[in-house]
Amino acid sequence: MAEASRTSEARRDAVFGRWVLFSPARSRRPTDLKSHNPTNPSPGPGTGAEAPKPSCPFCAGRESECAPQIFRVPPDESLPWRIRVIENLYPALRRDVEPPPPAPEGEAEAEPGERAVRGFGFHDVVIETPRHDVRLWDLGAEGVRDVLLAYAARVRQLGEHPAVKYVQVFKNHGASAGASMAHSHSQMLGTPFVPPSVTSRLNCMKEVFDSSGNCSLCEIRSKDILISETPNFSAIVPFAASYPFEIWIIPRQHLSYFHEIEQDKGYVVWNTMGQLTVNIKLLLCCLQALDLGSLLKTMLQKLSKQLNDPPFNFMIHSAPFGLSSSCLSYTHWFLQIVPQLSVIGGFELGSGCYINPVFPEDAAKILRELDCS
Amino acid sequence: MAEASRTSEARRDAVFGRWVLFSPARSRRPTDLKSHNPTNPSPGPGTGAEAPKPSCPFCAGRESECAPQIFRVPPDESLPWRIRVIENLYPALRRDVEPPPPAPEGEAEAEPGERAVRGFGFHDVVIETPRHDVRLWDLGAEGVRDVLLAYAARVRQLGEHPAVKYVQVFKNHGASAGASMAHSHSQMLGTPFVPPSVTSRLNCMKEVFDSSGNCSLCEIRSKDILISETPNFSAIVPFAASYPFEIWIIPRQHLSYFHEIEQDKGYVVWNTMGQLTVNIKLLLCCLQALDLGSLLKTMLQKLSKQLNDPPFNFMIHSAPFGLSSSCLSYTHWFLQIVPQLSVIGGFELGSGCYINPVFPEDAAKILRELDCS
Ligand SMILES: Nc1ncnc2c1ncn2[C@@H]1O[C@H](COP(=O)(O)OP(=O)(O)O[C@H]2O[C@H](CO)[C@@H](O)[C@H](O)[C@H]2O)[C@@H](O)[C@H]1O
Ligand SMILES: Nc1ncnc2c1ncn2[C@@H]1O[C@H](COP(=O)(O)OP(=O)(O)O[C@H]2O[C@H](CO)[C@@H](O)[C@H](O)[C@H]2O)[C@@H](O)[C@H]1O
Repeated sequence: MAEASRTSEARRDAVFGRWVLFSPARSRRPTDLKSHNPTNPSPGPGTGAEAPKPSCPFCAGRESECAPQIFRVPPDESLPWRIRVIENLYPALRRDVEPPPPAPEGEAEAEPGERAVRGFGFHDVVIETPRHDVRLWDLGAEGVRDVLLAYAARVRQLGEHPAVKYVQVFKNHGASAGASMAHSHSQMLGTPFVPPSVTSRLNCMKEVFDSSGNCSLCEIRSKDILISETPNFSAIVPFAASYPFEIWIIPRQHLSYFHEIEQDKGYVVWNTMGQLTVNIKLLLCCLQALDLGSLLKTMLQKLSKQLNDPPFNFMIHSAPFGLSSSCLSYTHWFLQIVPQLSVIGGFELGSGCYINPVFPEDAAKILRELDCS
Repeated sequence: MAEASRTSEARRDAVFGRWVLFSPARSRRPTDLKSHNPTNPSPGPGTGAEAPKPSCPFCAGRESECAPQIFRVPPDESLPWRIRVIENLYPALRRDVEPPPPAPEGEAEAEPGERAVRGFGFHDVVIETPRHDVRLWDLGAEGVRDVLLAYAARVRQLGEHPAVKYVQVFKNHGASAGASMAHSHSQMLGTPFVPPSVTSRLNCMKEVFDSSGNCSLCEIRSKDILISETPNFSAIVPFAASYPFEIWIIPRQHLSYFHEIEQDKGYVVWNTMGQLTVNIKLLLCCLQALDLGSLLKTMLQKLSKQLNDPPFNFMIHSAPFGLSSSCLSYTHWFLQIVPQLSVIGGFELGSGCYINPVFPEDAAKILRELDCS
């Protein structure tokens, strides 16, 4: 359906339970204020010198200016690094304070009202490349996969800490998406509580499951909102996208935890009879990660091409650690990409309800048909 | 306590139930990207010509370029207008489509999952002054009061429509706060559903009430977060402010509905004996509105002075129409002012949890001591 023929619609999604107002008319409103989006200052490959930027602590050769390293890829220190996971030098939560005392089983959120706890937690940075002029989607599919596997490995480590309840993995690209550093990186925060959006997402998915017997994300079937599919993942513009050209990458299998994506090795193993065999589960996981790397790369390329290298965020939505198996039947992880094309105003801040001038079916069609090969 | 002596803390508030991470260390992080905040292009009084801006449809004399007027202040068309309430020319919801069928009593939200309804609703603009170069806080306290009374009058009108469940009143000031028009104005949206943040606010306040017997907002007593008090209102930096220098203006009496603030007239009435008497309830309401106008003016002046005319939003948080009287005991309206000093990043978008580098007690002290007289 062409944009012109559509009229306003309010839609509620089955994952966050949020209402979104779709209003093509909104995109025609005039402005006498400056553009909301300063052009993105990320250089892009080949546009600048290949040498490290003199002041950037994330560039190769300036490792000593960073907070301590947690691990690197490859681990072998005699080889140059491709990815570094480091502590955030200006952390929002601190690993060096005492964690809050564990709540008695089942009473975690029992006491409503005001509460203050010490700011315990983990705040890490993932440097995705040693080069200042390379963006995530400039890496090959294997390179993007390795960044995703580095996230997963670090999430697994954080999940071993008894006081860490959730890890939020996210990326900011461009000043209007909040980035303070131009060098390609992402971050994660391990929190001593389950964040509010995670709780409300789980509640909403549970309600849908209780009433329909289905997982909200396994249910998605519509071809109209599909951008691309691989054996393991679908990329869609969600039915009630809060932002124009928002994309969700969803595993096609029902999987609750992002971090169970496995490392790309070890699927050829010796069995108890002393014979070399292929561990099918590990092999599938490894293909999954490559599949995801390749699809994420393509989606970021599409956004960059269609929207002229927009600022964007992506967030991985996974399940809190230690969920009971009954909850696992309605939790399904996914990766949400949000281009930042307009500024949130008072309506969204006050009501939690978004206004989107672009219908998901229209955005999906444009992104589907865009050729990035 | 001085900023330097504070360490990270996580706080949850008793109104939205949101966790906020307070981290003074964050304010020291460097940036190699441009400033997030283009300076605010609103002119301010005396800085430009007093003539209307040639292209601004909100200026006096250009009324014919606006969408239809709903009402004006003063109503007498022979006098120049001071405030106009008009339809939004590019509405997010449309008053000219059929409203969704009413849900059977008590079943409004019974069906979870994806849903799409026609985009019925009301989207209005309040032009706060005929002059392009006047900001809301340049008006006298009476002028600000009249704007607030215009909001309330329009909310009452919208509340009479059976399909309107909530009205979100809000103001965007400055491009980084989403404003597309520089001429001082605010907006309201009447929605055919209760927005998600309203539902979660009510749920959170109900939980607190059920466990403590108190309304979350009547409970606030701390002097440390108080900025200013009048007979009817308190201005505070909330205990778990999501944004640096966020301000809440709260009626000191337990009142659920903003729109019950009354017009400044009619409190001198003839009684049944034919004597002139003062209707105390109406008199108090009228003083309430002036009190609120004066406090809002002062808070906006303080933010403008302390933060150099920052972009900001304000939102009125009231109760949905037609709440049962048992719910009224835990709903308490307030006005939230949010200066936009930094950009929301992937952590906030993903988790619903905010990072604030400024402790509320520190922000309150600065705003309390700032002299704007
Ligand atoms: N001649 C005319 N007559 C009547 N009305 C006219 C008009 N010319 C323009 N308008 C309306 O005036 C309003 C001005 O509003 P603001 O400047 O507060 O922000 P806007 O609504 O554009 O978007 C901001 O607020 C919304 C809601 O929070 C966010 O969705 C968005 O991203 C953000 O930029 C617009 O809604 C526009 O449609
Ligand atoms: N030498 C060094 N060693 C180690 N770490 C270093 C470092 N120099 C800088 N850092 C860290 O690198 C990170 C870079 O992160 P981003 O550019 O993605 O956004 P930032 O976290 O600044 O804020 C954005 O994201 C957050 C979270 O979403 C929002 O709160 C905020 O408003 C938004 O601007 C910063 O967190 C910084 O502390």
